[in-house]
Amino acid sequence: MRTQVAIIGAGPAGLTLGRLLEAAGIDAVVIERRSADYVLGRIRAGVLEQSSVDLLRQMGVNQRMDAEGIFHDGVELSFNGDMLRINFQELIGRRVMVYGQTEVTRDLMDARAASGAKSIYEASNVQIYDFDGETPRITFDKDGQSHQIECDFIAGCDGFHGVSRASVPEKAISLFERIYPFGWLGVLVDQPPVAEELIYAHHERGFALCSMRSHSRSRYYVQVGSSEKVQDWSDDRFWDELRARLNPEIAESLKSGPSIEKSIAPLRSFVAEPVRFGRLFLTGDAAHIVPPTGAKGLNMAIHDVAELATALSEFYGERSSAGIDTYSARVLENTWRTERFSWWMTQLLHTFPDGGDFGRRIQRADFDYLGASRIAQQSLAENYTGFRP
Amino acid sequence: MRTQVAIIGAGPAGLTLGRLLEAAGIDAVVIERRSADYVLGRIRAGVLEQSSVDLLRQMGVNQRMDAEGIFHDGVELSFNGDMLRINFQELIGRRVMVYGQTEVTRDLMDARAASGAKSIYEASNVQIYDFDGETPRITFDKDGQSHQIECDFIAGCDGFHGVSRASVPEKAISLFERIYPFGWLGVLVDQPPVAEELIYAHHERGFALCSMRSHSRSRYYVQVGSSEKVQDWSDDRFWDELRARLNPEIAESLKSGPSIEKSIAPLRSFVAEPVRFGRLFLTGDAAHIVPPTGAKGLNMAIHDVAELATALSEFYGERSSAGIDTYSARVLENTWRTERFSWWMTQLLHTFPDGGDFGRRIQRADFDYLGASRIAQQSLAENYTGFRP
Repeated sequence: MRTQVAIIGAGPAGLTLGRLLEAAGIDAVVIERRSADYVLGRIRAGVLEQSSVDLLRQMGVNQRMDAEGIFHDGVELSFNGDMLRINFQELIGRRVMVYGQTEVTRDLMDARAASGAKSIYEASNVQIYDFDGETPRITFDKDGQSHQIECDFIAGCDGFHGVSRASVPEKAISLFERIYPFGWLGVLVDQPPVAEELIYAHHERGFALCSMRSHSRSRYYVQVGSSEKVQDWSDDRFWDELRARLNPEIAESLKSGPSIEKSIAPLRSFVAEPVRFGRLFLTGDAAHIVPPTGAKGLNMAIHDVAELATALSEFYGERSSAGIDTYSARVLENTWRTERFSWWMTQLLHTFPDGGDFGRRIQRADFDYLGASRIAQQSLAENYTGFRP
Repeated sequence: MRTQVAIIGAGPAGLTLGRLLEAAGIDAVVIERRSADYVLGRIRAGVLEQSSVDLLRQMGVNQRMDAEGIFHDGVELSFNGDMLRINFQELIGRRVMVYGQTEVTRDLMDARAASGAKSIYEASNVQIYDFDGETPRITFDKDGQSHQIECDFIAGCDGFHGVSRASVPEKAISLFERIYPFGWLGVLVDQPPVAEELIYAHHERGFALCSMRSHSRSRYYVQVGSSEKVQDWSDDRFWDELRARLNPEIAESLKSGPSIEKSIAPLRSFVAEPVRFGRLFLTGDAAHIVPPTGAKGLNMAIHDVAELATALSEFYGERSSAGIDTYSARVLENTWRTERFSWWMTQLLHTFPDGGDFGRRIQRADFDYLGASRIAQQSLAENYTGFRP
């Protein structure tokens, strides 16, 4: 088989790239290790920046998003119960949309199926070759047979643990990482959210987040130690702990219920440099990880593949490699800007075992500065909604 | 001897308080352990916020300051040689004045001498008593004799190592502290400053600061390890190291010369809570220390004693203890706001032995965010020039 661009991974990055290349008349195949249902079963973030919404609309995969997505004008912060609303719309004239990553993925899968663009699911043992030359190749096994795809370019959209970044020679890549000494225990529940907007709560017991997927489905999180096991967290224990970290009035109006899903995710900051190796491009989680505080992961992935689609369109349309040559620098500029913000929000809102009393007071001072300064609020707002200078 | 307010310490905090009380018709004595010349020999910061300038003018100790002080519209930041100017005046309509702390102290001493207000220098073995009651006392030795002052209030303006905070029972006070793993090696030189404004430089070799006392006297600093000794730093070594940390063009135009003064100061963040104990008030360095990045120490001290003078004026003028009762909370609000900013500027600009590669990139991302965002610049500007919501 031959294609112009082989896309490894059918998450939102790979599928968005596929859609953009399709629109540009560039032939692409999506190769995914898992089944479509497995991919859709992963629970992920659910906040879209305006630029992500715009891109999904431009790609024509906006029908359900426009019907079901919920625009938020701001967020609520809470610090040991003291509440502070950050009104993005009033501060900087932007807002965000709550629409689950799972839903974005489903919409993109449906659109790809409808257009007949080629996707290969359950492709095991994916290997990539020769991306340092002009004729990269991919091999994989499917239905007991070995397959090969020859291509011009490989797009690594296969996440943190994928084969793409792992195939880069160690000496060609620099990795930057911070592991946080805690994770997020998340619970999905079929109850209306406790508040109309998200609530990011710092509490001396640890961070908590009140989030949602829709008007009737809520997603809640509490910070837990790195060694915690999900089986030690009954629903009751989770709801008690969540309520203890919220403002009492909010805690009282929180509607709990049996958890539909419950899992613990570690928190990590991670950046690979560069993100282009000859004819291999890394995007999304294959290139960088942010802690979920600030809801940037999906938006970064969409940013990356939009840059890559533009670069590839220039290559095929204008025979110019300018976009390809600057892909890495453009992605990394956005990456570090976003890493900084996600790191800052994580620092502000979590409790750190080694933070010390002075560190805890600095967190409080950070919160108080936000409360006192319109400029500080604008800074949070411009970053949360997606800062693109 | 009897007075209304006994002021311990003849630094800028004590002398400013003395001047303000004088103007309010409140009797005060300043007791200082050292000689006036010793106090004036201490080399300290030299940047005044507008509110400090305003207060010195209001107190009538502005003649020389207005003649010799230099208004700065902004500062320059440098990151591994990349320059970024932060224009306070354009960003938020405020500026700062460069006028040495030594000069402020001298002006206040001269004013106090001219008015005949009582000061006792070279008072050894100062002790304070009974500040938890209504008749506090101070004892000290002078010229081989023991002396006692009875008073209504004691103002502890005697710095970090002074007797005032040390006299508070341990269980009545909470201390918050961060010791930084480095110090500033400072050199004073009779040469015109390398630039019209201050240059705060992050460099992978460490922080550097180009500062000044006047158009003909400059003050330069380089970050050094905590264990460094000043005798190991020849003038030549200092100038070489400073130049290596600056933008090459700036390094080339830097005029060096024999050092007039050379010393190493450790960096510390420190806050005591509360800052009022019955009839004892802590002010300035007795209450809190900031690292010098951001030049806040003198301005915090002036803020504290202005609050205290207002509180004491209300007490004597209106027999109201409201100002006294809220002194601690008002001071601490400003303290933590300022501690946060000084800590942030310190984090941004220094190299940290345990910062790691990720931490170093976050510092760069912070600098790049400042370069890209007017809002980020406004935030720095409002804090550097003195944020008082």
